Amino acid sequence: MPEASQPTIFANDHGVIQRYRNYLPVTDNTPIVSLSEGSTPLIHAPRLSARVGKGCTVLVKYEGLNPTGSFKDRGMTMAMSKARENGSKAVICASTGNTSAAAAAYATRAGMDCVVLLPAGKISQGKLAQAFVYGAKVVAIDGNFDRALELVREIGEMDEFEIVNSINPYRIEGQKTASFEIIDDLGDAPHIHVLPVGNAGNITAYWKGYREYHAEGKSTRLPKMVGFQAAGSAPIFYNQVVTAPETVATAIRIGNPASWEAANEALNTSGGKIDIVTDAEILEAQGWLAANEGIFVEPASAASIAGLFKCCAKPCEGCPVNAIEPESTIVCTVTGHGLKDIDTALSARSFRTIDAKDDRSDILGKLGY
Amino acid sequence: MPEASQPTIFANDHGVIQRYRNYLPVTDNTPIVSLSEGSTPLIHAPRLSARVGKGCTVLVKYEGLNPTGSFKDRGMTMAMSKARENGSKAVICASTGNTSAAAAAYATRAGMDCVVLLPAGKISQGKLAQAFVYGAKVVAIDGNFDRALELVREIGEMDEFEIVNSINPYRIEGQKTASFEIIDDLGDAPHIHVLPVGNAGNITAYWKGYREYHAEGKSTRLPKMVGFQAAGSAPIFYNQVVTAPETVATAIRIGNPASWEAANEALNTSGGKIDIVTDAEILEAQGWLAANEGIFVEPASAASIAGLFKCCAKPCEGCPVNAIEPESTIVCTVTGHGLKDIDTALSARSFRTIDAKDDRSDILGKLGY
Repeated sequence: MPEASQPTIFANDHGVIQRYRNYLPVTDNTPIVSLSEGSTPLIHAPRLSARVGKGCTVLVKYEGLNPTGSFKDRGMTMAMSKARENGSKAVICASTGNTSAAAAAYATRAGMDCVVLLPAGKISQGKLAQAFVYGAKVVAIDGNFDRALELVREIGEMDEFEIVNSINPYRIEGQKTASFEIIDDLGDAPHIHVLPVGNAGNITAYWKGYREYHAEGKSTRLPKMVGFQAAGSAPIFYNQVVTAPETVATAIRIGNPASWEAANEALNTSGGKIDIVTDAEILEAQGWLAANEGIFVEPASAASIAGLFKCCAKPCEGCPVNAIEPESTIVCTVTGHGLKDIDTALSARSFRTIDAKDDRSDILGKLGY
Repeated sequence: MPEASQPTIFANDHGVIQRYRNYLPVTDNTPIVSLSEGSTPLIHAPRLSARVGKGCTVLVKYEGLNPTGSFKDRGMTMAMSKARENGSKAVICASTGNTSAAAAAYATRAGMDCVVLLPAGKISQGKLAQAFVYGAKVVAIDGNFDRALELVREIGEMDEFEIVNSINPYRIEGQKTASFEIIDDLGDAPHIHVLPVGNAGNITAYWKGYREYHAEGKSTRLPKMVGFQAAGSAPIFYNQVVTAPETVATAIRIGNPASWEAANEALNTSGGKIDIVTDAEILEAQGWLAANEGIFVEPASAASIAGLFKCCAKPCEGCPVNAIEPESTIVCTVTGHGLKDIDTALSARSFRTIDAKDDRSDILGKLGY
């Protein structure tokens, strides 16, 4: 089965490398590993726009509609294609979340092994469900998470292995395509771009994408980049490493971001800002977005929405959201689908059924009709 | 907040009504309720193609990448837009699964109430998580499921309510757009289209779409429609109502399909066939697709893949899959994302970690490197 180990691109595949190959470090010799990621919807959010006011238009970039349910797929198509080009036989990472899910899916697609290295005590079947289902080899070591990362780096030095943790530079290349899509959809860059910040790879990637497209004349402006960290996990905001980061938004529970410096550059150069939101604000925003715009996202994703609410409710000095002109366009990235973490969504709030008799009038009465 | 109750279409929204409005029963007066559903990827499946052999190309239409995680969104954008056009204040359905999730999300988007009517004993927070999160009013009645459906019909007769269960004819109109997308992507219709069959609305809708596009000259051929029911829930295959349907593939656990007649018409007119697959075959196919193609689907979706395997392994007399010409194109619809039902995916198979010491050589040895 030669097809099995060397998947070919079907002429109509629509992954981000096919769509934006001129902006990415690939050649005709790069074997493209894709699951048709990207081209996610930019959804107009009328109620969110109304909350911001000033005639602004708020749109949500719904990255949960990537194949494995998060934005990580954009970076993984690049990382995996380059790993294959370089002759690697396997990829390796230490991650309990969206990265391991994406790595496992794309490695399978590439006909490569995916090794996920984790501390023995930190392996939850639920969190790792996708990695398992996509066929990753999950190795439980008797060291801690830092030691797992060290071992990933050590093993990644071998020719057979490629590291796909965030230190892999190709991931940011892939992720920057989200900015291209936004400009292609809007016809220009937004005035403000709001996103959750954990490892800070995404804010770095978006800013890179915006600058590259701007340099090509594809947009007339650059957006102000506005990032939100979870209050218990906010090293960039506090400007110091957080040794024991804690937040319900597990996807941004990072104490020492890999792209810290690049994120600061994006924030400063764009005239943006970084701020924090509490877990309560994150969960409130998650529920609000689902129940008001029909968009269900994982908790980390809701940090961008919670942040926008915070800026509008009580603008701080120099807040770019407060300072924007009327009729401005604001894009919020929501990074992962709510289906990624149903348990948190359910446990965060109490849902009640309306109990009724087997009777039309009783039902209508209880519904208030 | 007038914007809140009347969401307007942003110029760059890409839902199926915007994309295919000439083929849908909408006018300029129809208020479009959309979450940018549709335009889902048609993913080339090289290993699935190799299993089919004969130089055939198999592609997977990944409907799990719709906003609420299933193909139901295509029908719901139509049903909800027409409900608003007709002045309804609320929609009502009896469903524990993908229909209630889609109904709740689109109703929220439309600024309408969504009422989900269910027997008190049949309400699982997990299954209904999306409906709850999107803000549906879940009514627990003290009757059984048939009684809930009767009450939906009764209440649906009121002007204030629109029924969005599968008897709503607009849902099939929306769902047929998946065929349009496939032809637009491939440049022609596939030779064979394989899909899971439960209520039979989807096979009906795809066939309608294929015929309409063919009549417009958009394709040179019509595909043979091949449907698979779960063995314990196969009324069309056995040609008799199943009073107590049972299958792990809950999304196709239907004993008396709403579109039974139309499905038979599609099967007969297209020269296709209907067959059954066991729960074991469904779960095996689900695991295989994730671990070999990197595509994770809910159990019901895997019925199409399981069916294709069955046809190839032991073709029955007159099997259209067996009779196809070399180099043919086969499209399999997978209807929902695997994240919809993580519990079944995990409980169906036992995943094992590889235990290793905090040591590079030990890890590499255990991995076989």
